[in-house]
Amino acid sequence: MNPKSVNIAVVGATGAVGVEILRVLERRQFPVGQLKLLASARSAGKTLEFQGKPHPVEALSAEAFDGIDIAFFSAGATRSREFIPAAIRAGAVVVDNSSAFRMEEGIPLVVPEVNPGDLKNHKGLIANPNCCAAILAVPLWPLHQAATIKRIVVSTYQSASGAGAQAMEELLDQVKAHVAGEKPVARVLPHQLAFNLFSHNTKIADNGYNEEENKLMAEIRKMFHLPDLAMNATCIRVPVLRAHSESVVIETEKPLSADQAREILARAPGVKIVDDAATNHFPMPLEATGDLDVHVGRIRKDDSAPNSLALFISGDQLLKGAAWNAVQIAEELIR
Amino acid sequence: MNPKSVNIAVVGATGAVGVEILRVLERRQFPVGQLKLLASARSAGKTLEFQGKPHPVEALSAEAFDGIDIAFFSAGATRSREFIPAAIRAGAVVVDNSSAFRMEEGIPLVVPEVNPGDLKNHKGLIANPNCCAAILAVPLWPLHQAATIKRIVVSTYQSASGAGAQAMEELLDQVKAHVAGEKPVARVLPHQLAFNLFSHNTKIADNGYNEEENKLMAEIRKMFHLPDLAMNATCIRVPVLRAHSESVVIETEKPLSADQAREILARAPGVKIVDDAATNHFPMPLEATGDLDVHVGRIRKDDSAPNSLALFISGDQLLKGAAWNAVQIAEELIR
Repeated sequence: MNPKSVNIAVVGATGAVGVEILRVLERRQFPVGQLKLLASARSAGKTLEFQGKPHPVEALSAEAFDGIDIAFFSAGATRSREFIPAAIRAGAVVVDNSSAFRMEEGIPLVVPEVNPGDLKNHKGLIANPNCCAAILAVPLWPLHQAATIKRIVVSTYQSASGAGAQAMEELLDQVKAHVAGEKPVARVLPHQLAFNLFSHNTKIADNGYNEEENKLMAEIRKMFHLPDLAMNATCIRVPVLRAHSESVVIETEKPLSADQAREILARAPGVKIVDDAATNHFPMPLEATGDLDVHVGRIRKDDSAPNSLALFISGDQLLKGAAWNAVQIAEELIR
Repeated sequence: MNPKSVNIAVVGATGAVGVEILRVLERRQFPVGQLKLLASARSAGKTLEFQGKPHPVEALSAEAFDGIDIAFFSAGATRSREFIPAAIRAGAVVVDNSSAFRMEEGIPLVVPEVNPGDLKNHKGLIANPNCCAAILAVPLWPLHQAATIKRIVVSTYQSASGAGAQAMEELLDQVKAHVAGEKPVARVLPHQLAFNLFSHNTKIADNGYNEEENKLMAEIRKMFHLPDLAMNATCIRVPVLRAHSESVVIETEKPLSADQAREILARAPGVKIVDDAATNHFPMPLEATGDLDVHVGRIRKDDSAPNSLALFISGDQLLKGAAWNAVQIAEELIR
């Protein structure tokens, strides 16, 4: 591919992540040559703006990838399984935002701040991690390099955007209904989200953990090349629109003071320290929204175990948790 | 006192907790004799309904406690420090919902399901615990009795009600503003809560933990009579109206399977098991609202440490977290 004019396809272009991929490509002045917007037949015929010009949305098909250099897939695991082989055969390198291939042996699962080296031997397909895993990996990786993480305990505060644009709209509709004195209705999500929260809406596996929690744990282990890392996750959906937060406790091999951790994180790529005790100003989803960096704060010693450290993070689910990490992978590919 | 006709004072009667104390006294058919509603001079002259009849609100004064058997204080730590001595001198037994005396040596801090025995030697004052501590203590105590808890790691999802009726109104106002296309305003809480969340709005102490987290840890240790219990807390405010949730990991001396824990909790007083993996139905603040019991679910083994167990709980902040626990203490006192 010509790194100065890269032909791009966005599969799932009308979805919450697809739209953000277009915005991030613009924001990063990514050298887009041809731009192909693909979506379900239902969305075909719509247009989406890119760099101030309308672009038509076409129906996704196996034939759509001719001449494409990089294809971003963000239309769910089923579409990824069906159409990624065709995209690779057509010569595109695929960055897949779905969970379809993430845990497959030989498929790189990449957060560029963490394991860019894993991109080297890709076979036409790079998996973009689960949103919580990407957001968590960014601050934990430099701490791991400094002190060797032995155990992670994480509880998430996940926004509606992780369930797609329709879930975001549902949250807004529920809030409107409540204000109007009507009963909020849950259609996309299993329970009312407005003024509520609930255990993540994925199936509970045999180990008692839901799919989201199992993804988060498995993907951190894969990206960190620590297949046996001790980790526990609790994934909770909260009535926030588009940034995820995570309450994290890590136990490390070597001691690490809160100040040392703060210094390491202040230098770490992709991290913004938001940790001002004097003004009670810490990571918040509303402030992390729209930011490419993961906000990190409440960095403090945990005296309940040896070499234990607690922190609280917020990151934009649609950006570092999806679109930005995908575009960042593409930036690495054309470097 | 005559246990069939108990003269009651409610200090802070017009506040979020005060109003709930009246509702719980009705709901429990508490044998109320005389009822004295006390509040700031600003609220004096208002009336509140109790058992279908209007009752006047009087201005709080040191002279207001003559003939009172049990006084519920729920008007903040400053009022408690100022007026509780007078109430005790007048012969009332005080149940104080504020943090003023909770950690004082010799003052019982009681959750009736946990340490009713501590009521025995009270000197006219019983402290009602912090809302998160009360809600957490209920399911953890029976697990501790079965397997001896060595360490607790908890992350909270705290509702607006913990900051009072004005904070609940502020959340609703912010949501209304958002729906109307206006900018939500934060006056009571330090940051916008609608579609957002933030680290609990109390001062960060020298140990890096905020006051809420330090209260939660200290109070669990006091109630459990485990002054050295290893514990870590992260307290987060979420856009929910009135029930708190907590993501909890406990490490125990003896092994405890998820099934064993579920059996113990199914028999435990004050606990309602909400743990249906098949329908993805787990504790939610919206369902815990109005319930006297603490909802417990997501009970599962945590393989990241030996003898470790994870669970998720929701409890009504205004009920078990405040008014109900206080009335429950009063029920013990007249038993």
